[in-house]
Amino acid sequence: MKRIFILYISLFFLTVACSAPQQEEGATGVEKKEENISGATMQLASWEQEPRKRILEWVEQVTDSASSSYIPASDRIAVFDNDGTLWTEQPIYFQVAFAIDEIKRMAPDHPEWSSQGPFKPLLEGDLKGFMAGGEKSLGALLATTHTGMNTEEFNQRVKTWMQTATHPVTGKHYNEMIFQPMLELLDFLRSNGFKTFIVSGGGIDFMRVWAEEAYGIPPYQIVGSMSGLSYEMDGDQPILNKLPELFFNDDKAGKPVGIARNIGKRPVFAAGNSDGDYEMLQYTSTGSGERFGMYIHHTDSVRESAYDRESHIGQLNRGLDDADKYNWMVVDMAKDWKVIYPYELK
Amino acid sequence: MKRIFILYISLFFLTVACSAPQQEEGATGVEKKEENISGATMQLASWEQEPRKRILEWVEQVTDSASSSYIPASDRIAVFDNDGTLWTEQPIYFQVAFAIDEIKRMAPDHPEWSSQGPFKPLLEGDLKGFMAGGEKSLGALLATTHTGMNTEEFNQRVKTWMQTATHPVTGKHYNEMIFQPMLELLDFLRSNGFKTFIVSGGGIDFMRVWAEEAYGIPPYQIVGSMSGLSYEMDGDQPILNKLPELFFNDDKAGKPVGIARNIGKRPVFAAGNSDGDYEMLQYTSTGSGERFGMYIHHTDSVRESAYDRESHIGQLNRGLDDADKYNWMVVDMAKDWKVIYPYELK
Repeated sequence: MKRIFILYISLFFLTVACSAPQQEEGATGVEKKEENISGATMQLASWEQEPRKRILEWVEQVTDSASSSYIPASDRIAVFDNDGTLWTEQPIYFQVAFAIDEIKRMAPDHPEWSSQGPFKPLLEGDLKGFMAGGEKSLGALLATTHTGMNTEEFNQRVKTWMQTATHPVTGKHYNEMIFQPMLELLDFLRSNGFKTFIVSGGGIDFMRVWAEEAYGIPPYQIVGSMSGLSYEMDGDQPILNKLPELFFNDDKAGKPVGIARNIGKRPVFAAGNSDGDYEMLQYTSTGSGERFGMYIHHTDSVRESAYDRESHIGQLNRGLDDADKYNWMVVDMAKDWKVIYPYELK
Repeated sequence: MKRIFILYISLFFLTVACSAPQQEEGATGVEKKEENISGATMQLASWEQEPRKRILEWVEQVTDSASSSYIPASDRIAVFDNDGTLWTEQPIYFQVAFAIDEIKRMAPDHPEWSSQGPFKPLLEGDLKGFMAGGEKSLGALLATTHTGMNTEEFNQRVKTWMQTATHPVTGKHYNEMIFQPMLELLDFLRSNGFKTFIVSGGGIDFMRVWAEEAYGIPPYQIVGSMSGLSYEMDGDQPILNKLPELFFNDDKAGKPVGIARNIGKRPVFAAGNSDGDYEMLQYTSTGSGERFGMYIHHTDSVRESAYDRESHIGQLNRGLDDADKYNWMVVDMAKDWKVIYPYELK
């Protein structure tokens, strides 16, 4: 396996073992359902007044053809990180949870895994022991669960997992742990002529399976990290095989590169939650004309998780330091969001 | 320069020197303007009845929700090759014409080019002499004109060239030499809920500058070959630098891979004109359900160019051999198209 692949996957893990669930179960004391103004559903209803006003005013300004800040519809490109920005990323990235569950599912066909090799501690429930295997173990985990199969087989595995697996803290399916205020923001931007894209360090194939249903974002508007792919014939049928090498790491300075490659226009709106999103927000906010940069700050230890500068997942240092410089809006999840998850509204 | 880059660019050239203009000037004896049926503009008006009927019937079938062949709108992905499919590619790929013109434009700042090195014959108008320099000269041509600058500088160069340069045979701007019947086909598919994408062996950055205006296809629906890119700061401003290495060759088996990466859905409609498009059409036509594959056959030596099996640009062998096997429609440009270029209608 190529070293670069190992480096990539190490971004996923770092110190998974150090991250403990920080959310208290059952913290869904939210009474807000949907509000209506003159019979219409209120825009951005789950946002508190101050951040809501800032978003509404910016969108009103850039979509007003009489304004000097007007942005034509063809340039209304909005990009969103996924992990920690559109859905939760604790206690471990959900894609890593998928990989671990896959190892457990595949284990009966690989009896040797339980007596030796990198997956032995994992199968014994010893995540710390697994992590002690370092890059080699992590590389084996991702390679075994994400490559060496064709894209349709992989898609089916993700689909099945998403329908069956549940989060260790909330007990909800992972695709239920998306952020209600961000869903409202995506809808609001789209209803104002924006095209919404995901630009994530996560795997592009993993996201595309469920993101269209979850966020209304089609596969061709999702940018992410990619493994190698080869086009081959299996009898009369062509297949695309996923290869155990990293083709593109869509993180940090890779995000503006991924945007240039898969989108081809400089965004005017960007939202992220960690320093992995810094360059994406910087690239967006330094474009000429009115721009909007947003950082989701995980401050809510009751309803979700609280972490920033010291966290080993979704670390946020430079983003907080430079928020004023670039006029980025820092969203305080505890104070600014009336609701975290859609299921709180039911 | 990486060898892979040289291999890529050699695809562009092969025997440029062997290709002579095959079109006779002034062959625009077309009387068909626009036809109307009950006051509405006729769909696919530049297509003769037989191919027109085949397209109309297929689209009617797959968009009829009562039909067993129905394809939901979210899966109506249509992919088009560019060179030779949406616009002319003779006597040399237009992107290569751009590169040669750029060398001539840059030459005054590089007096050494006229006395030695790969560009000397080019500046003396000796294309064959330049080609004798082989891969090394070709690599230098593309590297010098397509990399070593940031994306905004490159875009501006393409834009300026497109506004000023003209085709050696027709005297028209290159972006006027797009195919009228294909414009009608793009519009027709879009009006029936299809998303239209370009999937080309040509450079993605080159196409994105002008393709939205020419074809109505936005940058994020264009897939193409890509150079390396790096995100860097130039003072306070981020730039994306184009690096002299090939990141992705979107040709032949690379086309289904490019589709998987940038689109993420298997197309239901594909159009190409050369064996470079074979795998894209194969990948499309072997999907389950109703599929449409189309090969543009360059048969019109009067109005455009006639070439197929023996051509060194846009060679078409396997496509013709397997057209029946995959039920591909082979469009005979001379017989099936009433008009070639939009300017014939003016």
